[in-house]
Amino acid sequence: MTTAELERETKNRVPTHPGTTMKALVYHGPGKRAWEEKPRPAIQHPGDAIVRITTSTICGTDLHILKGDLPSVTDGRILGHEGIGVVEQVGTGVSEFRMGERVIVSCVTACLKCDFCRKNMYSHCRHGGWILGNTIDGTQAEYVRIPQADGSLYSFPSDGDEEALVMLSDILPTGFECGVLNGQVKPGDTVAIVGAGPVGLAVLMTAQFYSPATIFMIDLDDKRLAVAKKFGATTLINSTDGHAARRVMELTEGAGVDVAIEAVGIPTTFAICEGIVAAGGRIANVGVHGKPVELHLEKLWDRNISLTTRLVDTVTTAMLLKVVRSGKLQPKQLVTHRFAMNDIMKAYETFGNAAQEGALKVVLTANQ
Amino acid sequence: MTTAELERETKNRVPTHPGTTMKALVYHGPGKRAWEEKPRPAIQHPGDAIVRITTSTICGTDLHILKGDLPSVTDGRILGHEGIGVVEQVGTGVSEFRMGERVIVSCVTACLKCDFCRKNMYSHCRHGGWILGNTIDGTQAEYVRIPQADGSLYSFPSDGDEEALVMLSDILPTGFECGVLNGQVKPGDTVAIVGAGPVGLAVLMTAQFYSPATIFMIDLDDKRLAVAKKFGATTLINSTDGHAARRVMELTEGAGVDVAIEAVGIPTTFAICEGIVAAGGRIANVGVHGKPVELHLEKLWDRNISLTTRLVDTVTTAMLLKVVRSGKLQPKQLVTHRFAMNDIMKAYETFGNAAQEGALKVVLTANQ
Amino acid sequence: MTTAELERETKNRVPTHPGTTMKALVYHGPGKRAWEEKPRPAIQHPGDAIVRITTSTICGTDLHILKGDLPSVTDGRILGHEGIGVVEQVGTGVSEFRMGERVIVSCVTACLKCDFCRKNMYSHCRHGGWILGNTIDGTQAEYVRIPQADGSLYSFPSDGDEEALVMLSDILPTGFECGVLNGQVKPGDTVAIVGAGPVGLAVLMTAQFYSPATIFMIDLDDKRLAVAKKFGATTLINSTDGHAARRVMELTEGAGVDVAIEAVGIPTTFAICEGIVAAGGRIANVGVHGKPVELHLEKLWDRNISLTTRLVDTVTTAMLLKVVRSGKLQPKQLVTHRFAMNDIMKAYETFGNAAQEGALKVVLTANQ
Amino acid sequence: MTTAELERETKNRVPTHPGTTMKALVYHGPGKRAWEEKPRPAIQHPGDAIVRITTSTICGTDLHILKGDLPSVTDGRILGHEGIGVVEQVGTGVSEFRMGERVIVSCVTACLKCDFCRKNMYSHCRHGGWILGNTIDGTQAEYVRIPQADGSLYSFPSDGDEEALVMLSDILPTGFECGVLNGQVKPGDTVAIVGAGPVGLAVLMTAQFYSPATIFMIDLDDKRLAVAKKFGATTLINSTDGHAARRVMELTEGAGVDVAIEAVGIPTTFAICEGIVAAGGRIANVGVHGKPVELHLEKLWDRNISLTTRLVDTVTTAMLLKVVRSGKLQPKQLVTHRFAMNDIMKAYETFGNAAQEGALKVVLTANQ
Repeated sequence: MTTAELERETKNRVPTHPGTTMKALVYHGPGKRAWEEKPRPAIQHPGDAIVRITTSTICGTDLHILKGDLPSVTDGRILGHEGIGVVEQVGTGVSEFRMGERVIVSCVTACLKCDFCRKNMYSHCRHGGWILGNTIDGTQAEYVRIPQADGSLYSFPSDGDEEALVMLSDILPTGFECGVLNGQVKPGDTVAIVGAGPVGLAVLMTAQFYSPATIFMIDLDDKRLAVAKKFGATTLINSTDGHAARRVMELTEGAGVDVAIEAVGIPTTFAICEGIVAAGGRIANVGVHGKPVELHLEKLWDRNISLTTRLVDTVTTAMLLKVVRSGKLQPKQLVTHRFAMNDIMKAYETFGNAAQEGALKVVLTANQ
Repeated sequence: MTTAELERETKNRVPTHPGTTMKALVYHGPGKRAWEEKPRPAIQHPGDAIVRITTSTICGTDLHILKGDLPSVTDGRILGHEGIGVVEQVGTGVSEFRMGERVIVSCVTACLKCDFCRKNMYSHCRHGGWILGNTIDGTQAEYVRIPQADGSLYSFPSDGDEEALVMLSDILPTGFECGVLNGQVKPGDTVAIVGAGPVGLAVLMTAQFYSPATIFMIDLDDKRLAVAKKFGATTLINSTDGHAARRVMELTEGAGVDVAIEAVGIPTTFAICEGIVAAGGRIANVGVHGKPVELHLEKLWDRNISLTTRLVDTVTTAMLLKVVRSGKLQPKQLVTHRFAMNDIMKAYETFGNAAQEGALKVVLTANQ
Repeated sequence: MTTAELERETKNRVPTHPGTTMKALVYHGPGKRAWEEKPRPAIQHPGDAIVRITTSTICGTDLHILKGDLPSVTDGRILGHEGIGVVEQVGTGVSEFRMGERVIVSCVTACLKCDFCRKNMYSHCRHGGWILGNTIDGTQAEYVRIPQADGSLYSFPSDGDEEALVMLSDILPTGFECGVLNGQVKPGDTVAIVGAGPVGLAVLMTAQFYSPATIFMIDLDDKRLAVAKKFGATTLINSTDGHAARRVMELTEGAGVDVAIEAVGIPTTFAICEGIVAAGGRIANVGVHGKPVELHLEKLWDRNISLTTRLVDTVTTAMLLKVVRSGKLQPKQLVTHRFAMNDIMKAYETFGNAAQEGALKVVLTANQ
Repeated sequence: MTTAELERETKNRVPTHPGTTMKALVYHGPGKRAWEEKPRPAIQHPGDAIVRITTSTICGTDLHILKGDLPSVTDGRILGHEGIGVVEQVGTGVSEFRMGERVIVSCVTACLKCDFCRKNMYSHCRHGGWILGNTIDGTQAEYVRIPQADGSLYSFPSDGDEEALVMLSDILPTGFECGVLNGQVKPGDTVAIVGAGPVGLAVLMTAQFYSPATIFMIDLDDKRLAVAKKFGATTLINSTDGHAARRVMELTEGAGVDVAIEAVGIPTTFAICEGIVAAGGRIANVGVHGKPVELHLEKLWDRNISLTTRLVDTVTTAMLLKVVRSGKLQPKQLVTHRFAMNDIMKAYETFGNAAQEGALKVVLTANQ
């Protein structure tokens, strides 16, 4: 170890404010959350970084956790897997980031070394994956410990906007990787997106990177569909009457769609995708499913289709950052509500009533 | 039209033996078939060719038809979609073949002109697809009319063996395209093939083009498994005890397989594939399914898998022909029984009792 | 042959105006062209169609021919390989088009049946390729014979604009296939296009299907660069001073570009591409070269680059048509001048002085 | 840091034999090398590992260095970038390897974290690439320091053979990645490999993973060609008469080859590749070039070819390891001579006279 490195290590080892605490949004079993005092995190492994959160947001998954749907999340866990912040401290094994640097926190933790990471499947990292706000404490807090920091943080560009780029933590790579890349959207394609919630809209925004000719947006809620129109959907279909699939088949003169993207996670919406995929087409599943679905292989076996599933790998973060910086992607459009981090309890209520509130993404800003 | 062309057209227009009849294997409703007299086929459209069949074979699908499973096949239909023969006559629109040329008949008829053919999805050809021995008369006869001949016949090489190359009509492209290409088999991969019937064995033979490290073969029948061993399977699993999936997971130390290929067509075998596919792996469906299956999206949604279906397109016939000619593929291994075409009724019995007879492919040879 | 078909054939065989002549632009050796009387073309082969041209245009290649650069073009040849028209007559082998249908004529003739067509390399079709206005008479005429019509014509959509869609005959597929697809342009990429002539601009327009972040446009002419700016180039570089490569390297902070597209066809412009391609990048050659170039393998051998060449295959015509119809591609922007077909001699002069005239594409309209 | 980790770190920090020296093959300027005493390497950075070399080998590049061709290699440098060994010590940032583990040393050092590593271009790693035995001390020594150890070492399998697996350090991934993968060898392809030296043979061995139908091997030396025959080449061409390209064109009936792989690195052999590549084919450059070549774009611009260059990334090491373990690749065939490490001076002489000695790979074994 060189002198400079030893010095840096020593400096970093000194906790910024030893013994102090912080505020965080803590899960206390189904239906229970609190904005409370917790010990400030410290470096535990050489690859760790401590990040002071400046901007965060709430994900639909956080609501699922609060319902008690995810047994991996236990009482006392700090929630949140999205955020922008400033590096406060780094372990000796961290080489790509240093104190004071502003960073995007990825929802997926990646060691970059294991067999899965080597295959660009960070979601299945042997030492990471989606653990933040799940099996370890997350980003809805003043500070967060990020393991495998070199693989899990991204440099925040000097000309960046925190509200826009916090969408790169999860929602945009999720829509893009699971929906658009897996669906292999191509110029001139006919695409259907089932579900106009935040993730479906992220699919919609990033699908346009590839200039499809037609984008059907299917949802139960006309308000959400109106937003989809603004974001570039070419045809809106309200599926309340149960005839969405039939409608798509009529509009495509019986051909169906090249790409059907499931962005809800229930059997009904999956069935729509099955019903509208063209021969030779792709079904890309984005939604989180809690139950099996019926796959009509007796109809599909000879239709030359593909069906994909994926947990976001966040391997496209660097690419997405370039597109945002070029102005061709405007993630800020997703932000409908803003709260101070101290008001996170209220922010959860708003986000929990997304339909009534017209909420897409709710941004939380740390107190300066 | 040049003189030569007019001459050729005129010659071709003269039916070889006007008014004569031929023998053919005719379907007469569920359970009923006969080797009987039928009118010899004639050119109906400019793209047609008449082929005198010299070698044919029986497909598992023919047995399905005889059970009455395929309503598209009606009483009076000549069965068969595989064959080698000699061109007797061509329509004026046929440019790639001429009288006297020996040809391989593809099970799929391709116009080459429609949108699906342009996308290499001959299976969905607007003017063809799988129609031979289905919606038009087939190859288990002395003569057959081949529509769209330029897209549906392949030149038989001068050094070819009819018994070997008749396997290019259907079974080898089916195994290769639906199983191996869709499954994206790669060097070093772990592959599982569920079903050691003729199609599963065709998958097994062609999977080895890509040098996978391990090939599990799963079947209920030890005799078929023994054949699979001879054909290159590295591990045999008899699934009679219902624990095939568990066994594969143990043998792969919990990882599962990179590629799971379904070559049977029932929910049980599909369930094995679902149960053993590794994170990041592929399920390639080859089997013909009559019922829906349960897809466990609640387990698979975050596993980064792909699932494909496909009716064979026979777009790889030229490639397969090259590999056969190089000696790297030995299709003749699939032939277990040989009959004269006149004995086709007996051949069907043997093939219908495949398990007891140890039958894989049954070759039919025309009387000289 | 059915009665209907025989009837249709008979009808088609009757030449529309037997014995009549037409006007056409005829090449008479280097530097010599004339708008003169020629016999009207007739069906020669079953796959032929006769098309009455309603809109045509002039290609840079036509100027090369006139200079005498292409020995394949001989005295008496009618020039032109781009056009829109109406089918007047079809041979008996034509199945996809009928009399009275409006069509786009592709610059590449494709039989769809040969080994190259089967590999989607229509440019190398055994019975076609680029032959129109080259080895057979072309589209700068009142009528043209199109061999292999089913593979060489595309249906003109009812809502189409002839001026826009005549750009699908050659220039747009050329830019898209040779430049953008071969260059594998991806979202967020940095792209450089060397040459802002019509083909370079077609590259520029179609590159944007994939949302690159930065597009450098390099040319000697500021007027053309100004047009490129309007068409979506993000950075303009006038290469008159010989420092274009250095400038790109500075602007990319030494990294170079992901994709360098050569759209001129001389050693100097190729050298710029070699000099600016990033490690891991692609050079896509679009230009027609008359001389060898120096390839600096001593610098490039370890740079993980790819270099591609391609004669347009026009396999993306259907895709481009969809994108045009969706409004995401506006080919009409390329049209700067319009002439009646009778004034084609003047149109050639204008196009021959493209720089002074500010000419991109010059459209020719038939007299009604 | 946990107690266990602190303990491990402390243990690792104790140099195995502080103050001791070792023997190593040292470069002392053009033509000068010596097997001499050098200080034993020590951990310098947290990501470093110290490896005790048990098996090494000599690369053609080492001979180039000795001629003085690589200015990056300076007086005093320990040569060698291939080896098998045992981990003696690891830095605090190393997580994938521990003391006592047997490892394969990759010729390419990869941090896994930089933009190039993220794109699987380890060859261009910002903190590594090919540096061993080049800009830092290498593996022809008793001990070597491996920076970025987690990305640059691979676990040696318990059933492995050191002589076989030392071929995974460089030569097999080089042949496979630069030649076979970049050349996109497919089943049934016609492949030509120009150069039957060790690297050309590595291409030959790994090309067979994809079952090409024909492999032409082209070289000046009949002895090497005879070896190629044994390794699977189907046709041998001695290029001494300068007519190799013509010969290939005759044997392919004018079509040329699907893939031409350059494994020498001089203009003459590159010219053969240019001369034999089929329309639609690929030229994959493997050779290290010292001079520019003439690229005949005036002939190739419309031939739809691709040309690739690549410095080995060693991203396929895990895949190759699986294929070796399956028995489908026998790297030991490449070993022709064996020496004790102490006799490395003699080993260099043998390898330097490869043609006369019939030497392919020369294996060096450490004294036990």
